[in-house]
Amino acid sequence: MFPKGFVVNGVHCGIAKKKDKLDLALFFSDRPCVAAGMFTSNFVKAAPVLISQDNLKKNKNCGMHAIIANSGCANACTGVPGKKDAGAMGAMVARSLSLGERAVVVASTGVIGKRLPMSFMTNGISAVCKKIAAGENNPVSAVKAIMTTDTAVKIVARTLNIGAKRVTIWGCVKGAGMIHPDLVAPHATMLSFILTDAALAPSFAQRALKAAVAPSFNCVSVDGDTSTNDTILLLANGAAGNTPISAGTLARAFSSALNAVCLDLAKMVARDGEGANHLVTVTVRNAATAASAKKIAATIATSPLVKTAVFGADANWGRVLAAVGRSGEKINPDTVDIYFDGLSVARNGAPVDFSEKKAKKILQQKELTITVDVRSGTASATYYTCDLSLDYVKINANYRT
Amino acid sequence: MFPKGFVVNGVHCGIAKKKDKLDLALFFSDRPCVAAGMFTSNFVKAAPVLISQDNLKKNKNCGMHAIIANSGCANACTGVPGKKDAGAMGAMVARSLSLGERAVVVASTGVIGKRLPMSFMTNGISAVCKKIAAGENNPVSAVKAIMTTDTAVKIVARTLNIGAKRVTIWGCVKGAGMIHPDLVAPHATMLSFILTDAALAPSFAQRALKAAVAPSFNCVSVDGDTSTNDTILLLANGAAGNTPISAGTLARAFSSALNAVCLDLAKMVARDGEGANHLVTVTVRNAATAASAKKIAATIATSPLVKTAVFGADANWGRVLAAVGRSGEKINPDTVDIYFDGLSVARNGAPVDFSEKKAKKILQQKELTITVDVRSGTASATYYTCDLSLDYVKINANYRT
Repeated sequence: MFPKGFVVNGVHCGIAKKKDKLDLALFFSDRPCVAAGMFTSNFVKAAPVLISQDNLKKNKNCGMHAIIANSGCANACTGVPGKKDAGAMGAMVARSLSLGERAVVVASTGVIGKRLPMSFMTNGISAVCKKIAAGENNPVSAVKAIMTTDTAVKIVARTLNIGAKRVTIWGCVKGAGMIHPDLVAPHATMLSFILTDAALAPSFAQRALKAAVAPSFNCVSVDGDTSTNDTILLLANGAAGNTPISAGTLARAFSSALNAVCLDLAKMVARDGEGANHLVTVTVRNAATAASAKKIAATIATSPLVKTAVFGADANWGRVLAAVGRSGEKINPDTVDIYFDGLSVARNGAPVDFSEKKAKKILQQKELTITVDVRSGTASATYYTCDLSLDYVKINANYRT
Repeated sequence: MFPKGFVVNGVHCGIAKKKDKLDLALFFSDRPCVAAGMFTSNFVKAAPVLISQDNLKKNKNCGMHAIIANSGCANACTGVPGKKDAGAMGAMVARSLSLGERAVVVASTGVIGKRLPMSFMTNGISAVCKKIAAGENNPVSAVKAIMTTDTAVKIVARTLNIGAKRVTIWGCVKGAGMIHPDLVAPHATMLSFILTDAALAPSFAQRALKAAVAPSFNCVSVDGDTSTNDTILLLANGAAGNTPISAGTLARAFSSALNAVCLDLAKMVARDGEGANHLVTVTVRNAATAASAKKIAATIATSPLVKTAVFGADANWGRVLAAVGRSGEKINPDTVDIYFDGLSVARNGAPVDFSEKKAKKILQQKELTITVDVRSGTASATYYTCDLSLDYVKINANYRT
């Protein structure tokens, strides 16, 4: 399943030291796209984020054609020269494929504080544009080219009918570390590119993306560190031939599929978090407000002590309750219940006599859920995270070298 | 140097599995003390915290005599029975040493969500009270008895003259993990007990402790997890014979010494953080406000990516700048300068051509300072933390077992 009218591919341009590591990807639509974007809320925004925000702003209604993205260098904290480099990446693609000046979105991920090697970029962009011009479509190569410490290619695709037309939504994501996206509209080193051949009204595209991101990408944390480069882009080229979607039943159907794609991608990020062995779903229920539920869930999901306990398969629910208590949300500890999957481990903020063996088995699973019922309202929230392992520390102790 | 009128000691009562691990300490004054306390802001407060807050409130002016403290079990998240146990600990000491009902403060540290083994406690309290009654003073044993994953005995003492009288301030602290105190007056598993033979006016005691805690214990983080049990206590028994201190030059002199004791103890906590190899001082200067400076410093000091980079001696200053940007404080990335000790590594938010060799050497030191100049005001703040090492993960993956 791949949306009509898109061609994507990846090459090795030389940023990566290993010769077989693809490091430059191009996502291209043969016709202009309605585009929507969400970017990092970090006050320190990488050069490509600034360029892309600007291009999107001036060109969002219908004129976007491509995304050029590299791994190995984030082009963040590189000052004015870095911004020039990011602009040049987009301009080279535009020139090579005869696109409008602002028809290209730029994204980068990798080491912060290093300039892009522009001679490699020039050759690489020329090479990848040739593949695209020749119609060589290779989604897996494109995604591999934006991976850093990721260990898995993360792609999700769905099809649905919009009226009589068959529509495809295809999404990919990279990101395993420095993952705690806080994406604000229309402003996120998680990169996620979502391509669809559906025709979308521009305002609906942005609204639908924002709604889809809130409970998915904005509820994932690997290490609590919000990146300078997080970027999520939706390109809709209309090649499916449907009447542009703007509201009503069809909009709800499309949104529902888009939400599912974003949620699947977000969970893939947590599952493939740096050094991770477990996808941990943290659900807080019966909180006073949705914001309160999210804050509590986020505090649990980012607690190093909770995450190391999961790594050690140690049913240390006290650390979960301690995290609830330090979330800043006013809760009554005496009405808090905690479950590991279906197993009750604490009730009314106090121990329950549970089977340590059963608890260990649950914690050893690849996927598990920590549920906290705070019994003080009706709101709930779900956050996705992973364990904090020895490998996380190893990966990050020597990331640049 | 030990303050007059105090006798302290520790015993093995059996909470700890190893027979030679001391696990119960008693800090005793032969005359009533003015007491001041700071406790955790976690909404989930351990039973001993609740009991101690209550005793302090009802008895702070002059009547406090002792602190009974154990390691190995935090008596947190133990409900009503846990509160009874904490009360019983204090009551046993009071009975054994013929003290008033509320003359004893109670503190616990260790595993959350387990009941105290009260038969062990009963025997242990009897044994330690005997030592105290016999005048057997052993500060090192007392401190060892409250240590958990600590690797060093952390004691600081200072003397100063108050008028014609020689006054001693003696302080100890335990705590290596779940360290991110956020102590609020008069409510903190960092335990710190400060004993002085100075005579203090009660209101001055609390004011001086609060002022001393703000830039010391409240600016330390090992892992960002604020405990359910953090407790700092100051007992002043007046045995030095000075006129009680309340304001003026003498108050400033005492406060200055108390501040130094608290700062030294706080830095010892970061230096001995779980698995830590480095004491990292994070200084933010020229921020808009002191609160903003503290928030930025705290965000850097708790970033897993910054801390793993220090562990790997990798001069990844981009992670520092990324942390500045996600702190939530509005800063201009283009005016941010970063230094590792005296070495400039980033200027105006962009790379500086620095010696990687020099940077590595700095990062390999036992103590180093990360300075961030945000050039947007005149306020500054300093935070103390440590690296995030493989040993941190190992220690916490199997804490209970």
